[in-house]
Amino acid sequence: MKMRVEELSTPALLVDVDAFERNLATMATRFPGASLRPHVKAHKCTALASQQAAIGHTTFTCATPREVIGMAEAGVGTHLLLANEVVDRDRLRSMVVACEAAGIGLAVAVDSDETIRSATQAGVREVLIDVDVGLPRCGVSPDGARRLADMARSSGMAVVGVMGYEGHLQMVTDQHERATRVRESMLLLRRAHDDVGGEIVSAGGTGTHRMHTIGLESPSGVTEIQAGSYALLDSQYAALDDGFAVALTIAGTVISVNGRRGVADVGLKALGMDHGDPSIDGASVWFCSDEHVTFAVPEGQQLVVGQRVHVIPAHVDPTIARHEAMWLVRDGEVIDRWAIDLRHW
Amino acid sequence: MKMRVEELSTPALLVDVDAFERNLATMATRFPGASLRPHVKAHKCTALASQQAAIGHTTFTCATPREVIGMAEAGVGTHLLLANEVVDRDRLRSMVVACEAAGIGLAVAVDSDETIRSATQAGVREVLIDVDVGLPRCGVSPDGARRLADMARSSGMAVVGVMGYEGHLQMVTDQHERATRVRESMLLLRRAHDDVGGEIVSAGGTGTHRMHTIGLESPSGVTEIQAGSYALLDSQYAALDDGFAVALTIAGTVISVNGRRGVADVGLKALGMDHGDPSIDGASVWFCSDEHVTFAVPEGQQLVVGQRVHVIPAHVDPTIARHEAMWLVRDGEVIDRWAIDLRHW
Repeated sequence: MKMRVEELSTPALLVDVDAFERNLATMATRFPGASLRPHVKAHKCTALASQQAAIGHTTFTCATPREVIGMAEAGVGTHLLLANEVVDRDRLRSMVVACEAAGIGLAVAVDSDETIRSATQAGVREVLIDVDVGLPRCGVSPDGARRLADMARSSGMAVVGVMGYEGHLQMVTDQHERATRVRESMLLLRRAHDDVGGEIVSAGGTGTHRMHTIGLESPSGVTEIQAGSYALLDSQYAALDDGFAVALTIAGTVISVNGRRGVADVGLKALGMDHGDPSIDGASVWFCSDEHVTFAVPEGQQLVVGQRVHVIPAHVDPTIARHEAMWLVRDGEVIDRWAIDLRHW
Repeated sequence: MKMRVEELSTPALLVDVDAFERNLATMATRFPGASLRPHVKAHKCTALASQQAAIGHTTFTCATPREVIGMAEAGVGTHLLLANEVVDRDRLRSMVVACEAAGIGLAVAVDSDETIRSATQAGVREVLIDVDVGLPRCGVSPDGARRLADMARSSGMAVVGVMGYEGHLQMVTDQHERATRVRESMLLLRRAHDDVGGEIVSAGGTGTHRMHTIGLESPSGVTEIQAGSYALLDSQYAALDDGFAVALTIAGTVISVNGRRGVADVGLKALGMDHGDPSIDGASVWFCSDEHVTFAVPEGQQLVVGQRVHVIPAHVDPTIARHEAMWLVRDGEVIDRWAIDLRHW
């Protein structure tokens, strides 16, 4: 059954398949196979993850137990990393059970005695030491990594390496400064890795991936990159001009017109607003309300009730998490529907 | 089966039942029965709407077709107003069918020829003229209301009145200024109502409800108020100090500690961020990431991994829309789970 994009109810999350596939190919050229561990938190979609696996990336990064369990139940990937701290033993245990049933490897990030104890008690077999590389969030200080690794090993778990997310550097606009600061961050991570050992040094994101090099002896010294947003992008990452294109928009319908001012049915309940207002090509966005975006078009441009607009979110990850499905579009035709099946926690 | 609140997986939306019931009672005293038409977009929960109906409000405001259909299918309310423009005839038709099946009345807002045509073709029987009272969003100018009413009536529909949402005034902090500007806005709405007729003049919200008086001959001249956020509140509405208490928090678990800095698992995917960062009693919130809130406690205060925190969202409506359920809590005991069953569009 063929469907035109105009037949979709709005608001609807649209994926430009060609742009999406180019984004995947571009990243796979830069970081092929296991040198990229795509982060599923960006899209929360096992169907999309399957495309990343098909192009060669079979190891994945997750942020929540539900993402791990969903990936395992869908049978996508060979090895999952929960790159986040969890002390809920029941949910850790559910992750272990789901991955074992699927024959998929699982490693969990730890950064404290408590997270190690929870992992041990839940039957987790592999952990990574999460290292603070400058983002004031999770992660043990580099000096504390060795003690945690010893504790984890003496608890019977394998310590497969370290991770450190330089999230504070993703949006540093000056490329040279970004590169310098990523290198400094990675010195912290390597120092921790010298103390911890293990084959994995995991870091990076869409904003910093080009500042990384793969190999323990290479300049940045990582073994894998955790980027996720590159696949679909958003207006903020697009501003970095890193070779990716915006592949995700939200189709809306103009429901009210007053001269050059229009209102479409893409409100902030359909958007992640933490990076600010979305954009609309050829229009200026005034503000978003719960169910509406109010915008204006340039003088002389026609606006009619019922016409479609395409809204570009400023932050892709929390935007997708608000929707039930994304629609794949090529040449104006809807070719598939992907459930956003890894939502919530 | 009794459950303590500490047993819930986090992040979890908690409703303080006592505060919630007091909020409902306070509003029902000010605007009893049909003088309040509670807006379900604030909570998207038929179980909560049932409580509003039980205290006497049996007419409801909705913002999306799914809210209307969900309310009708749950059999809550006697009359629903879709206070929003929709030109999708299939969804309008689904609303009409669901309401007719449930024996529930339905009126739909219109503000243009196109919205009237769509309503007519979908079999809608009652419309309200949505009037622009100063918020630059939907609504026809007061001068244009009569023509639309005539058009709707000649299309065979009943025009049951007018609505005008003074959303731009909800957060005016000076009470006197807020009252003055609400009165000015309502003069526009009354002028339109003089031209349109019908028994309904619908306006107001949680931020302005006290500036309204019920009755066509009363100072503000409305017949009903559309408030919704009052039931659960948020930190921004709480600042208005209007007699309501914050009844909604998000329970989180501290997953990482570094001195006085803590990280809890309540990230911006669990929050509406358009009104800014959430707050945590006794702590200062630094920033939110997708899955985390980073905060600091005062010197001398203990922070341990695994402890619970309660996060107060800055904007309740889009926060609730990110969750699958809310948990009702009294004296630390979970007494019910309410599905957020009206999510999406």
